[in-house]
Amino acid sequence: MTRRLKLGMVGGGEGAFIGAVHRIAARLDDDFELVAGALSSDAARAQSSADAIGLARSYADWREMAREEGVRADGIDAVAIVTPNHLHAPMAHAFMAAGIHVICDKPLAVSLDEGRALAQHARDANVVFALTHTYSGYPLVRHAREMVAAGELGEVRVVQVEYAQDWLAHPIEQGGADGRNRQASWRTDPALAGPAGCLGDIGTHAYQLAAFVGGMEPVAVAAELHTFVPGRRIDDHVQAMLRYANGARGMLWASQVASGAENALRLRVFGAKAGLAFDQEAPNELWFTPQGGEAQRLTRGRVTGAAAAHATRVPPGHPEGYLEAFAQLYRDAAAQIRARDMGVPPPPESTLLTTVDDGVAGLRFIEAVLASSAADGAWRALG
Amino acid sequence: MTRRLKLGMVGGGEGAFIGAVHRIAARLDDDFELVAGALSSDAARAQSSADAIGLARSYADWREMAREEGVRADGIDAVAIVTPNHLHAPMAHAFMAAGIHVICDKPLAVSLDEGRALAQHARDANVVFALTHTYSGYPLVRHAREMVAAGELGEVRVVQVEYAQDWLAHPIEQGGADGRNRQASWRTDPALAGPAGCLGDIGTHAYQLAAFVGGMEPVAVAAELHTFVPGRRIDDHVQAMLRYANGARGMLWASQVASGAENALRLRVFGAKAGLAFDQEAPNELWFTPQGGEAQRLTRGRVTGAAAAHATRVPPGHPEGYLEAFAQLYRDAAAQIRARDMGVPPPPESTLLTTVDDGVAGLRFIEAVLASSAADGAWRALG
Amino acid sequence: MTRRLKLGMVGGGEGAFIGAVHRIAARLDDDFELVAGALSSDAARAQSSADAIGLARSYADWREMAREEGVRADGIDAVAIVTPNHLHAPMAHAFMAAGIHVICDKPLAVSLDEGRALAQHARDANVVFALTHTYSGYPLVRHAREMVAAGELGEVRVVQVEYAQDWLAHPIEQGGADGRNRQASWRTDPALAGPAGCLGDIGTHAYQLAAFVGGMEPVAVAAELHTFVPGRRIDDHVQAMLRYANGARGMLWASQVASGAENALRLRVFGAKAGLAFDQEAPNELWFTPQGGEAQRLTRGRVTGAAAAHATRVPPGHPEGYLEAFAQLYRDAAAQIRARDMGVPPPPESTLLTTVDDGVAGLRFIEAVLASSAADGAWRALG
Amino acid sequence: MTRRLKLGMVGGGEGAFIGAVHRIAARLDDDFELVAGALSSDAARAQSSADAIGLARSYADWREMAREEGVRADGIDAVAIVTPNHLHAPMAHAFMAAGIHVICDKPLAVSLDEGRALAQHARDANVVFALTHTYSGYPLVRHAREMVAAGELGEVRVVQVEYAQDWLAHPIEQGGADGRNRQASWRTDPALAGPAGCLGDIGTHAYQLAAFVGGMEPVAVAAELHTFVPGRRIDDHVQAMLRYANGARGMLWASQVASGAENALRLRVFGAKAGLAFDQEAPNELWFTPQGGEAQRLTRGRVTGAAAAHATRVPPGHPEGYLEAFAQLYRDAAAQIRARDMGVPPPPESTLLTTVDDGVAGLRFIEAVLASSAADGAWRALG
Repeated sequence: MTRRLKLGMVGGGEGAFIGAVHRIAARLDDDFELVAGALSSDAARAQSSADAIGLARSYADWREMAREEGVRADGIDAVAIVTPNHLHAPMAHAFMAAGIHVICDKPLAVSLDEGRALAQHARDANVVFALTHTYSGYPLVRHAREMVAAGELGEVRVVQVEYAQDWLAHPIEQGGADGRNRQASWRTDPALAGPAGCLGDIGTHAYQLAAFVGGMEPVAVAAELHTFVPGRRIDDHVQAMLRYANGARGMLWASQVASGAENALRLRVFGAKAGLAFDQEAPNELWFTPQGGEAQRLTRGRVTGAAAAHATRVPPGHPEGYLEAFAQLYRDAAAQIRARDMGVPPPPESTLLTTVDDGVAGLRFIEAVLASSAADGAWRALG
Repeated sequence: MTRRLKLGMVGGGEGAFIGAVHRIAARLDDDFELVAGALSSDAARAQSSADAIGLARSYADWREMAREEGVRADGIDAVAIVTPNHLHAPMAHAFMAAGIHVICDKPLAVSLDEGRALAQHARDANVVFALTHTYSGYPLVRHAREMVAAGELGEVRVVQVEYAQDWLAHPIEQGGADGRNRQASWRTDPALAGPAGCLGDIGTHAYQLAAFVGGMEPVAVAAELHTFVPGRRIDDHVQAMLRYANGARGMLWASQVASGAENALRLRVFGAKAGLAFDQEAPNELWFTPQGGEAQRLTRGRVTGAAAAHATRVPPGHPEGYLEAFAQLYRDAAAQIRARDMGVPPPPESTLLTTVDDGVAGLRFIEAVLASSAADGAWRALG
Repeated sequence: MTRRLKLGMVGGGEGAFIGAVHRIAARLDDDFELVAGALSSDAARAQSSADAIGLARSYADWREMAREEGVRADGIDAVAIVTPNHLHAPMAHAFMAAGIHVICDKPLAVSLDEGRALAQHARDANVVFALTHTYSGYPLVRHAREMVAAGELGEVRVVQVEYAQDWLAHPIEQGGADGRNRQASWRTDPALAGPAGCLGDIGTHAYQLAAFVGGMEPVAVAAELHTFVPGRRIDDHVQAMLRYANGARGMLWASQVASGAENALRLRVFGAKAGLAFDQEAPNELWFTPQGGEAQRLTRGRVTGAAAAHATRVPPGHPEGYLEAFAQLYRDAAAQIRARDMGVPPPPESTLLTTVDDGVAGLRFIEAVLASSAADGAWRALG
Repeated sequence: MTRRLKLGMVGGGEGAFIGAVHRIAARLDDDFELVAGALSSDAARAQSSADAIGLARSYADWREMAREEGVRADGIDAVAIVTPNHLHAPMAHAFMAAGIHVICDKPLAVSLDEGRALAQHARDANVVFALTHTYSGYPLVRHAREMVAAGELGEVRVVQVEYAQDWLAHPIEQGGADGRNRQASWRTDPALAGPAGCLGDIGTHAYQLAAFVGGMEPVAVAAELHTFVPGRRIDDHVQAMLRYANGARGMLWASQVASGAENALRLRVFGAKAGLAFDQEAPNELWFTPQGGEAQRLTRGRVTGAAAAHATRVPPGHPEGYLEAFAQLYRDAAAQIRARDMGVPPPPESTLLTTVDDGVAGLRFIEAVLASSAADGAWRALG
């Protein structure tokens, strides 16, 4: 058996939903063991969080952690960065400087310049830098990408992508009967989240999914950001029109005030020959409809195709979900890290892992949307 | 029993899909009997079409029909205009001038000026002018409107409407193995369809549905028309962003090249308290989801509410469809015509019938979209 | 144009849901005009019902109607019998004796002997005898039958059919705040409905649908009837296991106390090569899934095949429903009546019309279920 | 942190799908670490399987493993038994005799007598004996049970449960292009699977799900087993009718030849007030419909209720699946094992874990079905 990789984590202490998700995902396929962490910026909380999960080495300070783990003989192979956005860049730089591979939450950073510097550093330091665009870990998302690339849709003409939630429909970041919602607080604070609210939090997921499956990024965007909730300091609604180099057209909608929506990330791609539809909330099926023809419900486990097979654990009809998609990123990161450490090319099936370059693309999109919205929706080229 | 109204028809001869639909719709609730027609601009075809359906009075020329029917003692009460768009205005004027009520296909006309003149004429002539926005005849569309108006969604924030088809994904208007498709030919010919292709044909349906249910029209639009099929002289794809006076935002997408789509008109409205979703292809259900809550599947026949009850014929679980929605417009038109002829106000439940004023609103939308698209997507106010 | 046939109706007066349905169905395709009726056994109600719909000839007594219409020069071609079950046989005999074709509600009669006599009389009198198993009028039900017959499923192995409603979950026939429910009253009264309650009312629909699509009737049944509602004099729940001559197995479930169900008639047929599924509440789609393969959503309008095309009025994506399925029976009956009156064979596409023989088959099923249930579920052969 | 429990595994070597599933499930919530195994009855395969997953202690013989692990200071706390059915009993007895807790695949054993002896032994040995009825680990299955128990459906009247697969539609156990399917081979061999084929493999899952949610077991069953595939030595199809003590009625259908079905386990329960429906292939939603009312789509994460909350890891709209349900059993087993070892009662939320007693109930059902089928479907009481 290949040895388990040693993983560290920054952020993700008690009360932080995403930390537990990362830990399950890292563990699910048995490629990583979590051995070190700086789980909170609050020293006491960091220690109690580490104790709660039986963590071997707990640090009060992430800078110290990067330094020490970089020099220990049994130091971590990779670090998971699961903090508010503004810390992604400094943390990632510190761990890369220590020769440690990085698995980082999205959005990559709070500006395109920051993102580009990270990409450059990753190349210079020769580390693997995975970005957790979870939804690209779904087998059928990868299968959809493969179908588009194989020309099964014909030339792509239309992209429709949307990501709707409703949990920010009211000002829960401003307190209430239950106090301030921690998740909402940092996500709606520009100092922590960066200049993009809904746009950065879920709009980038929608953008990435469309680019990943469609196999192309738009060349220009006309967009409008909006804030529905009084007192909120950041956008909670994004609408945008897209133009692609091949003449395709698209629309992107992201909203955190769409009453009734849970986590409704949906993509449709229409080509000259056929269309595809994927709904993140029903990830074990993918709809394919030829022009003028009948819809086919492709299912995880029954579709043939290398990409989907690689990301599948259980037979058809045994649903996989969000945690398995997340675990897929960890599994692919592990494969890439092992290859990198051995100085060999990564296994081809691991290369659908989203990376720092996808993060840079997301930041290009964010900046173009911000610019277009500021210019009353005028078309803006993507960096 | 109230007597059956006498109906005439212009257009709708052999090979014209919509003519048969109108005839079924007019007959379904037994309010009309078809007695006269000028079913084709081709005299021979007009006669053979009339013979095929056993029509009492067949005219070779619609002008003559308007004149004669206007003076006969047993002349028609109303005329159904089911021709290409460019003829709507001259025909409707002729019949209104003869004191005959009008039931007209959409879009109302080929320009906003034409539309306004029709609306003025209808008021001056004191005739009922129904416009066949079929989808507003569905019981659950009317129920949705009622729910929004009653405040069940709270303040409306987001409108998402789309209408996707795929039958024009290829240049079937330019001929092929089966010859030129007649439906496609006139719809893609600006001389017959007017300057708006997909925009006029189905974009106006989407626009009307959103306005009807949401109870409000946008104040500005930023739009982009596109033509995907080489050689086509008119748009086959519309994407638009919408702004409403109350701060709401919206998106409208209409496409006739969306491979796989049949007749996919879908509306979602999100308010501060709840969201609604309706899919024309599953018209016996309406989805209502409170913010943070569970989706409820409201069904035709089980929902209580006067508007839906009025438009329902059979019990829950016995699906009604497109023809029943269309018939509802005829039923409401009949009620209004009888009231008008008696000089009394129309029954309140008949007043959801779409009229010449909805047609003018559609033309306002068309002109704003054309203007915005010509200005590279700059926001344009709606007339 | 072929002339409209003259239709009479027995039963279906004010307050009888099914009378209005028959009238719409008869009118929808313009093959019939309703000219005579004995709409109620109550003379005053018969007259007021006739007046309400502008009926030309109203009779107080159906025997008189049969006699007079049989001898008038302009007498009715066919009669629709839409009364409680116990009257089907005497009425149908009377009209057949007068040389009048019959369109009769199901179940055909209240005993198998009665049913066999009707079938014999229909043959002797050389009249068309249509039985309104509405659901076999759906285009996709006919398409499903065609697919099975063409061997697309391989040898049929398993049949699963069910029909669930909830409107009799409580004793609404016994009165309440709104008084006794008329529909429920006669359906739960053995003197009017016959010995089979839920079994006769909807169990026969389920049975017929399975036989129609599967192309075979079971040879034996093991069944249990049950009455859940206290005080009810007739079954409101049926469960049965089926055996077929080719070794296939099946289950049938019908319930009128299935809380939440509207009109949930569903059929699944599994063969050695593929399976089919149809849901009456979504009649514009049919699911076909090859063994080990992906589900295909076949849609009305897109499926090719003569049977479906014959029963289709509007394009794909424009939903047809229950009334159109019902109208299909009238359309096919009209075609058969015209052919019979001309002494020629009926058009092949009209021959999927359900007839008196389907009614006899339903009564065979009823008697076998009653016998099995009385014998504590022992297997009983079908007549 | 509570310490990780030490887990052993018997069976589950290379090529055995269910072994990997157990390992992921055991690992997912970090309650267990796998340290020992006898992964195959073939010594070489046992060793290579152990090597492939980095197992600390590999045994060639499970009897030796039970003995040694029972006396080691660092011996396993629990053993997962993931072998063909005929080995469950001897293995479980051996590990219980060594004081080791048991997590065993279903069906519990190959006869009711065997099952009863296991239950008695578990009580005598004071060990936790978990049976992996995976589907009862779904949050919404537990929620459904809670709703029924709380009376939200009223008195339960009707239970409809089914489990359809199609992977045994052809004789894949008898070889073919790809050789004999290993999974199919033992499942269709009475010497390994016991006398019940489809009945034991998936029929027991369906039975258990209905009993778990409905809160009651039937008192009698009338059943018919059938074998469709020529040469198969065991049933591949089960149909049964059920009677409950409170007068409720039910049907159970299980098939492994239902062409097109993947893993279609579905349960519907109807009470006097409302109905529930759950589909294992869409486990993040549960449908609740009041009599005469509108369906509500309850979702994992949004439903409130202690049972569902306990079994939920990620927020609404982030799908959980089969592996998470399986992990829930491991999590609950861990909680019970820790409590047992400490001599305290198990945490209440862990007590929905399915146990040896559920296994005995399943065997009672199997024996009654076998008896009824052998008696041509006569009703047979459950043990």
